[in-house]
Amino acid sequence: MRIVVDAMGSDNYPHPDVEGAVMAARDWGDEIILVGQDGLIERELARYDTAGLKLEIVHAPEVIEMEDEPTKAAREKQHSSMHVGMDLVRTGQADAYFTAGNTGGVLVVATLYTLRRIRGVKRPALATILPLPKGHAVILDIGANADCRPEYLVQFARMGAVYAHALLGRDNPTVALLSNGEEPGKGSMLVKDTYKLLVADSSLHFIGNVEPKEALDSRADVIVTDGFAGNVFLKSLEAMAGMLFDVIKDEITAGLRTKIGGYLAKPAFRRVYKRLDPFEVGGGPLLGVNGVVIVGHGRSNGRAIRNGIGQARQAVQGNVVATLVEALAAS
Amino acid sequence: MRIVVDAMGSDNYPHPDVEGAVMAARDWGDEIILVGQDGLIERELARYDTAGLKLEIVHAPEVIEMEDEPTKAAREKQHSSMHVGMDLVRTGQADAYFTAGNTGGVLVVATLYTLRRIRGVKRPALATILPLPKGHAVILDIGANADCRPEYLVQFARMGAVYAHALLGRDNPTVALLSNGEEPGKGSMLVKDTYKLLVADSSLHFIGNVEPKEALDSRADVIVTDGFAGNVFLKSLEAMAGMLFDVIKDEITAGLRTKIGGYLAKPAFRRVYKRLDPFEVGGGPLLGVNGVVIVGHGRSNGRAIRNGIGQARQAVQGNVVATLVEALAAS
Repeated sequence: MRIVVDAMGSDNYPHPDVEGAVMAARDWGDEIILVGQDGLIERELARYDTAGLKLEIVHAPEVIEMEDEPTKAAREKQHSSMHVGMDLVRTGQADAYFTAGNTGGVLVVATLYTLRRIRGVKRPALATILPLPKGHAVILDIGANADCRPEYLVQFARMGAVYAHALLGRDNPTVALLSNGEEPGKGSMLVKDTYKLLVADSSLHFIGNVEPKEALDSRADVIVTDGFAGNVFLKSLEAMAGMLFDVIKDEITAGLRTKIGGYLAKPAFRRVYKRLDPFEVGGGPLLGVNGVVIVGHGRSNGRAIRNGIGQARQAVQGNVVATLVEALAAS
Repeated sequence: MRIVVDAMGSDNYPHPDVEGAVMAARDWGDEIILVGQDGLIERELARYDTAGLKLEIVHAPEVIEMEDEPTKAAREKQHSSMHVGMDLVRTGQADAYFTAGNTGGVLVVATLYTLRRIRGVKRPALATILPLPKGHAVILDIGANADCRPEYLVQFARMGAVYAHALLGRDNPTVALLSNGEEPGKGSMLVKDTYKLLVADSSLHFIGNVEPKEALDSRADVIVTDGFAGNVFLKSLEAMAGMLFDVIKDEITAGLRTKIGGYLAKPAFRRVYKRLDPFEVGGGPLLGVNGVVIVGHGRSNGRAIRNGIGQARQAVQGNVVATLVEALAAS
């Protein structure tokens, strides 16, 4: 398998990106193609023992930076590591593309400049695999489409089900619609209209609306929502987790007794982090384009990048794109 | 001051409701009017020493239950504790109304049957005061209006600012718009259009978009959003906090060392709860109707009910309704 890794993706590129690529090459033996400014990548690679690893560099002179406006950058920097990297997938020279870069940039470069939409796909969606106490759930859209129509959400449901099958190994995955109440009549007009379409879709195992609490209890393998609410949902979870850990730390270090308690409880906290850490998942797919594209968090460290590359591998092994083409053609 | 308390509100009515009413009467000396089925309230009240407290019972034979469909129940149960209670406010026999009951029911009974909208208010909004590490923030709408227009959100901003001034003591409160990115161009069409209106509104101290993380860092005194996203935001925070505490407990009790650590750290955890506990706030106001209406959580215990009644007191003392009438007439 040949996986392209954007060396110019993360907030701290190229360090975590190259580190993760080396880890992945070592752990799984795949061919990894690092795309980006070759001088920079070479210098970074020199820090690792890469003997025997299948690492290759493909030069891309331009970089779409985190703070770039996606549409403008995608148009003006057509020799970016995103354009060059996804083109390798488009032309069959590689099987998948991973980046921890500008999400909007990935979207525009993928849909307008390189891989383009799968035939019949109304809107590609960004998904992520949420680590939960009782397993994992695929949630989409988490930000590609702030304004959606019911038909888009039905396609998101189908794409999410394909991904949950391939990545989580679920047969006939359960699909739920994120809402502000569990009853069928609850929700915005978008949610109410989508509900009716999902109920009528015999290809899906639709289990109804879920509120955020139920979305976390693993009753649903796939959680469908528009990109605005999905983004708010996901970022609210992250924000609360961050705030809570900060406040807990604050209060534990406020006195000697609790400090000792915190020290003794440390292994438990480490396990909590590990169980719920999004870096264990490493990223989420852009679903609905002609190729495997996994987008990692800008703040990714080497391990997160490595895990995101791992997800790309699994998506290729699970034949996600071909299955999506089929599932969406059937609709 | 005379405050009406719905004795038939919470999930476990009338126990927490009456308990909280007794606590409030004891703590602040206000007149509390318990409204609901009189026999039930009398039996419940008999459990407390109420000598010297200004407690009164007003009979209301019907109950809008949590599982009732709001519109239907409001129409068919016009002798409910909500109708009777809010009518006491409407007719000037009481200054405020508190309930931990069916939120949809409160909305319908308030806007269509009793208090009705303040002149010029397009849509009343449900707000809540969010307890945060560095203070409090007013967030609205948290569920009254799943589908909104930009003009509604501008009014929510004005109403939220009045409430933040009265309840949190903020002069010229900062107002932010919840979005999926901080830049002005980010968000759904609703958010983008609202952004422009808020920038142009000289009566507001608008500081721009906030993502969930920034919404929790107290830069904004008021966070404005539509009722769908607001509900998802709030419930996601609650869901994550609940999940995290469960997982932490789980991991701490998994071994002896961490168990001892957890025991020693207990006072810290208690302080964390206390700092972020929504029951300390006790509820949120329905803003935009002709009267102070505070809605508590269905799961409220006595202390939460007492604190919700306290919020009603403060809203009356802060002259919230008259200020809202003025602020909205000026728009």
